[in-house]
Amino acid sequence: MSFNAYAARERGGALEPFDYDADPLGADDVEIEITHCGICHSDVHLVDDDWGISRYPLVPGHEIVGVVKAKGDDAEVEIGARVGVGWQRGSCGECEWCERDEENVCPDMRATCVDGYGGFADRIRIDGRFVLPIPERISSEAAGPLFCGGVTVFAPALRWMIDAKTKVGVVGVGGLGHLALQFSRAMGCETTAFSSTPAKEEEARGFGADRFVVSTDAGEMKSARNLVDFLLVTASADIDWRAHLAALRPNGVMCVVGAPPSPICLPAGAYHVGQKTVTGSAIGSPRAIRETLQFAADHGVRPQTELYPFEEADRALARTRANEARYRVVLGR
Amino acid sequence: MSFNAYAARERGGALEPFDYDADPLGADDVEIEITHCGICHSDVHLVDDDWGISRYPLVPGHEIVGVVKAKGDDAEVEIGARVGVGWQRGSCGECEWCERDEENVCPDMRATCVDGYGGFADRIRIDGRFVLPIPERISSEAAGPLFCGGVTVFAPALRWMIDAKTKVGVVGVGGLGHLALQFSRAMGCETTAFSSTPAKEEEARGFGADRFVVSTDAGEMKSARNLVDFLLVTASADIDWRAHLAALRPNGVMCVVGAPPSPICLPAGAYHVGQKTVTGSAIGSPRAIRETLQFAADHGVRPQTELYPFEEADRALARTRANEARYRVVLGR
Repeated sequence: MSFNAYAARERGGALEPFDYDADPLGADDVEIEITHCGICHSDVHLVDDDWGISRYPLVPGHEIVGVVKAKGDDAEVEIGARVGVGWQRGSCGECEWCERDEENVCPDMRATCVDGYGGFADRIRIDGRFVLPIPERISSEAAGPLFCGGVTVFAPALRWMIDAKTKVGVVGVGGLGHLALQFSRAMGCETTAFSSTPAKEEEARGFGADRFVVSTDAGEMKSARNLVDFLLVTASADIDWRAHLAALRPNGVMCVVGAPPSPICLPAGAYHVGQKTVTGSAIGSPRAIRETLQFAADHGVRPQTELYPFEEADRALARTRANEARYRVVLGR
Repeated sequence: MSFNAYAARERGGALEPFDYDADPLGADDVEIEITHCGICHSDVHLVDDDWGISRYPLVPGHEIVGVVKAKGDDAEVEIGARVGVGWQRGSCGECEWCERDEENVCPDMRATCVDGYGGFADRIRIDGRFVLPIPERISSEAAGPLFCGGVTVFAPALRWMIDAKTKVGVVGVGGLGHLALQFSRAMGCETTAFSSTPAKEEEARGFGADRFVVSTDAGEMKSARNLVDFLLVTASADIDWRAHLAALRPNGVMCVVGAPPSPICLPAGAYHVGQKTVTGSAIGSPRAIRETLQFAADHGVRPQTELYPFEEADRALARTRANEARYRVVLGR
């Protein structure tokens, strides 16, 4: 069976039509007819092979939404169900992390667009463990970005047990940040947005920020010292790490979910005083995606999207590459 | 009342006799007749003003052990009790951290040798909240190093909820590391020592290491990948941070308690894959010191010490400065 996709044939290459023969449908597998697919900045990194893990032809797309068309005997989804898929397409299923529903850190985790062809396509066949139903209240256009961008910012809140008493900071008001601000407000947290772009203040407040700090203004950063317990860095640019760490209150945690190009450098003393923590996050497990979708459905957290037809995948990817998307690009048909 | 101490009169200066008039004994204060005082590498940093916080004359010594000679009406200790004092001599007593028994991260924390004169002396007067009784089974010579070195390595185990299932690594087999190895073994943890000095293997195993990794050997570090859940970095030298982070299993935590001179630089991707965490630690609160002493008493954790008379404080400090101590120098009378 031939699936119709859009692929980059080489590093940095334009997305062009690409047909491939699907693998046979295994007992655990699900075949999805794709209606929508969000575009994440990591799709750009994959097309450009910024992480040295890409294989070509490369079909991007790991914020996949569609309808179940076929399934293997053991797959636990219903034909006709509206479902989605995120960054992960597989894991070993046997290690201690898989057994704890933390497949996202399984050493044999398989990525949707690296260990197979992704969601810029009309169909996909994929392990049913990574196919999750979408709550009715969330439209298919809005659902896509929750499968990667959404869980990326919400999973750390689960892992670090954020609650309404936590003072939250969000660095970067973009595809990830505009979702993080909404989640933070919905959790009842006092929320501060940090951005290098003063013009984003009004929108940031609209998404949920109680306070807006211009992160490139030394004076504003100084006044923001000792301000937040949890600082989610969604920016994929290099920032003044020391100034941002100083925004943490004692025992505070800085969680980096963006992909800044240069190493994060901090003196040991900056960690010691106030017992600061810097951590990363690996998107999120299927369970975390489920919780993200449910929380978003219950609290009205929705990505702000721009819709493009699949045929314009290359132009849509260019908007994401140029950081022009406000705030998340979605392909739809 | 005049107290007889040893002080550096200037940055890097030799320790010389120094008498000072004690402050009046406040209602909360305790006067201790000092019998022993451990020497910590941070005493060297203070004498040398490496952190830009020193005030001269500077009396080092924050692993103080002695006997209560006098007390204010409100101080909750017994005259004649054997007690000790660590890095902290005061805090605001009112902030949320003080109220949670986390005085070590109180923004107004006062340090024993910075905001007053330390324990290289015959007596000290100090806020009784920071004066803790010493369990009978611990000798006065052994007790000193537990008040700073001991709590520095044990408090992170409390904060990060280490238990017998945690695979622990200890980087550096020195004043801190030799205690950390003992604590780890006593907690029942599978324990790996990382050291740049192959000759320390036998002693490291004696202190509690099940495995010894030469941290400067790329091949050994490669075979140590994905080995530990919690890596306590006690070394105060620059290490290969990326190789050490790679020794962490998924969701692993690297806790830095040493004071390496250069910044800790790690790419964001090294944090993301496996959701790694880097954190610091601020020695420990009075409660943590209490728990450290009790655990050490119950499980036979003891520093290996070298005893010098107080009159030889300068020579003893030089041993610590030169990293020649095996493993902790204590002044005694």
